[in-house]
Amino acid sequence: LCEAEVVPAPIEFWFDFISPYAYLAWHRVHAVAQAHGRELVYRPVLFAGLLNHWGQLGPAEIPPKREFVFRQVSRRAAALGVPLRPPPSHPFNPLLGLRLASLELASESRRRLIDTLFRATWGGGPGIIDPAVVATLLADAGFDGEALIAEAQSPTSKQRVIDSGAAALTAGVFGVPTMIVDGELFWGTDSFTEIEQVLRGEDPLDHEGLARWASLPASAERRR
Amino acid sequence: LCEAEVVPAPIEFWFDFISPYAYLAWHRVHAVAQAHGRELVYRPVLFAGLLNHWGQLGPAEIPPKREFVFRQVSRRAAALGVPLRPPPSHPFNPLLGLRLASLELASESRRRLIDTLFRATWGGGPGIIDPAVVATLLADAGFDGEALIAEAQSPTSKQRVIDSGAAALTAGVFGVPTMIVDGELFWGTDSFTEIEQVLRGEDPLDHEGLARWASLPASAERRR
Repeated sequence: LCEAEVVPAPIEFWFDFISPYAYLAWHRVHAVAQAHGRELVYRPVLFAGLLNHWGQLGPAEIPPKREFVFRQVSRRAAALGVPLRPPPSHPFNPLLGLRLASLELASESRRRLIDTLFRATWGGGPGIIDPAVVATLLADAGFDGEALIAEAQSPTSKQRVIDSGAAALTAGVFGVPTMIVDGELFWGTDSFTEIEQVLRGEDPLDHEGLARWASLPASAERRR
Repeated sequence: LCEAEVVPAPIEFWFDFISPYAYLAWHRVHAVAQAHGRELVYRPVLFAGLLNHWGQLGPAEIPPKREFVFRQVSRRAAALGVPLRPPPSHPFNPLLGLRLASLELASESRRRLIDTLFRATWGGGPGIIDPAVVATLLADAGFDGEALIAEAQSPTSKQRVIDSGAAALTAGVFGVPTMIVDGELFWGTDSFTEIEQVLRGEDPLDHEGLARWASLPASAERRR
């Protein structure tokens, strides 16, 4: 019998360019994965589709929360040394970006493409809604921008983003960024602390409490 | 002219016993306030009323998020050394607890009362929905439990919680726990990092970016 080498599962990174928290997480998730010998799988997903499915509002859809979000993201970007500047408009339609990010490219190219789109959105760039502008950005990053834009607008590429939304719901993804580590879903930039605990094998999760929580009766329901 | 002594504004702590994140924040907020010479003002508020107003779902109302919440809270409680155990039922009606927590008591008594109710909810206790059970808990904590329960059920006490809900909305409170520091709203247990930056006078907030964010046009809206 030959011994099979156990390769740890890759970390799935679910994101949408609409989210400044996803932008911050983009700047951390590679280092975390690399430190623990994990590959990364990029999972672009339409955040609006998740909100529609779960019946939830996005943080930018509640006025005082929208303001809170920028203050928090601004401070966290400063702490991480990540440049942050609001895009030209928000909310915006992220589908072109998501379709580009879903193209089948070699891993390093795909990372460079996603990085280009994130910087164009939250790093002081011109945004990612105008195909001509995005083609130029991609060309500046060494891609054939026109060809990628054309491919992104094909039915196959559009379907890929739709399929990603369905896969997200099946996995229980309710927000972005979400990192899935060994089948467990971690939501938000503040989850990296817990992700690193788990990857270090120092997980203090109370499994008995979790089982109790899962089977807890409700004694009141919110009237809606 | 006599020099007026400048007393820094107290930190407002908005909470509902329904929230395990509020329970965790309860265990941090006193030390943070004390370290920076700030008083604390306790602001019990009905979380369900905030959700109703903003049209938002609570984290426990989205099944995969409900499970995520307990995993995150369990790990954070362990990191803080705070005992955590799910209450007998959840969601439950927190109004008795909120009315008790709103009673006009001396500051130290009020802290002890709120602490008793939080421990009864998330610290392995019997929950806070049964007045007879809560009266006993309060008596064990040195209060006249029967008298406090009676006072909590008076029209004045009920109105106080209603008024608190209105005040929360005026202040822009959209979730619990919320800490208001010098007029600025900080939401969630993961905001303590930023609160401490601000209290230390080391706030990296990008005010120009914030102003830009506030005046940003939308170029797309989510269809609902």
